[in-house]
Amino acid sequence: MNYEKIEKNILEFLRDYLATSGAKGFVLGLSGGLDSAVVATLCAKIAPTHALLMPTRLSNKTNLKDALRLARTLGLNHKIIDISNILESFCAANELSKQQKLRYGNLCARVRMCLLYDYSSEHALLVVGTSNKSERLLGYGTIFGDMACALNPIGELFKSEIFEFADFLGVDKAIINKAPSADLWENQSDESELGYSYKELDGALDFILKGLGNSRIPKAEILSGEIPSSEIPSVEILEFCKKRMKNNAFKLNTPAIAKVLRD
Amino acid sequence: MNYEKIEKNILEFLRDYLATSGAKGFVLGLSGGLDSAVVATLCAKIAPTHALLMPTRLSNKTNLKDALRLARTLGLNHKIIDISNILESFCAANELSKQQKLRYGNLCARVRMCLLYDYSSEHALLVVGTSNKSERLLGYGTIFGDMACALNPIGELFKSEIFEFADFLGVDKAIINKAPSADLWENQSDESELGYSYKELDGALDFILKGLGNSRIPKAEILSGEIPSSEIPSVEILEFCKKRMKNNAFKLNTPAIAKVLRD
Repeated sequence: MNYEKIEKNILEFLRDYLATSGAKGFVLGLSGGLDSAVVATLCAKIAPTHALLMPTRLSNKTNLKDALRLARTLGLNHKIIDISNILESFCAANELSKQQKLRYGNLCARVRMCLLYDYSSEHALLVVGTSNKSERLLGYGTIFGDMACALNPIGELFKSEIFEFADFLGVDKAIINKAPSADLWENQSDESELGYSYKELDGALDFILKGLGNSRIPKAEILSGEIPSSEIPSVEILEFCKKRMKNNAFKLNTPAIAKVLRD
Repeated sequence: MNYEKIEKNILEFLRDYLATSGAKGFVLGLSGGLDSAVVATLCAKIAPTHALLMPTRLSNKTNLKDALRLARTLGLNHKIIDISNILESFCAANELSKQQKLRYGNLCARVRMCLLYDYSSEHALLVVGTSNKSERLLGYGTIFGDMACALNPIGELFKSEIFEFADFLGVDKAIINKAPSADLWENQSDESELGYSYKELDGALDFILKGLGNSRIPKAEILSGEIPSSEIPSVEILEFCKKRMKNNAFKLNTPAIAKVLRD
């Protein structure tokens, strides 16, 4: 992987999009995790970048500290907004409790989107997304929540590539080395939740995107030895990824609109 | 306009999308206005339809009454959620006041989206959108707010067509005859805010979509008399619509993702 070239591609993308938009800079949610750290590092090279740190009372305190340290290192305009009270007002309105993890997690993501968009409007900024290619393909994210943004500089990079890219960009090792987590509850882990490591998932996703995952029978490219047998994903992980891609494709698309025939 | 055929198109669209999704029915926000009344009427013909009525303390009481009467007439599962407390918790978190009308209005729309999506997850429903073609083209709506949905049955119908379609569907005259309004503050009116009537706007939008709005010089079709001169929109309204379409096109598209070259 040529990370120098990738950085150049992404910085051009950010610069061009910003210039066309007429906005004054960028805003993103900074969680203390890897993806937002990489995005913040890239954005800060181009224009004034603002960060909202939006923990709940239950969020991991180390993440907040890591996010704060990163904001200071990069010289970001930053603001901490504890979203606990907002979440409670929603829970009261719609009979929702923290125990309903999926609903509660999606709500957290959407509340953060509301705050980012409101802040972006106040300061004439662009909301920058931080969903990586692995999450986007697997639908491991909240539609109209963390997947909502004006532009996303890392949406074409697999999570396993982002670890290496972060290292290339000089992101703090403390952030690179922590286990990926949405931090919606204690000790949540992406990889336990998904059931596979990102290395395994990215291998399978790449295989599927190359058109090699459509059959249980290995293709000519595999048989001819072009792909080492150690890199051929199991049938189970291929089926898991294909199913998630199919069921979550709607998250990457615009809403379906009824076509009407007027005559 | 053949509204019988249009109704058939839309009902097929709703039925097919629902069957593919595996959801149990539909949910939408019912405002007491025309668009959501038409969408509710159509959805209720296909599957169990739920309606959330989400006023603020400032909302027009007549709208709430109209929405409630409609929900009862159509036999919708319905629930009233006053969103005032949620809005206040956001305002406190992000130093926002009701006087900042644009930000506050967008926040209202996004809070409603959060509630609709949470409710849809609880009851395995599809969130149905109610943005019409006029609003969508002009960007007169909130991205990730009222424009967010799984599917939208009326997104290809101009507002001026929806008045007639509502009449065809037998929607309550009290709803058809009220002035279109986002009801974000007292006596707000879409048409005053936009500066033109929907009839004028839709004429101009249609003209532009037909490829006739790209120049200040009338095209051959106009000169040859195919379009009566009374139907030719003014240069001012054409420029107004074209500018809004250009500046708001992002609301109809998925986020921009940086392309990366890996070699």
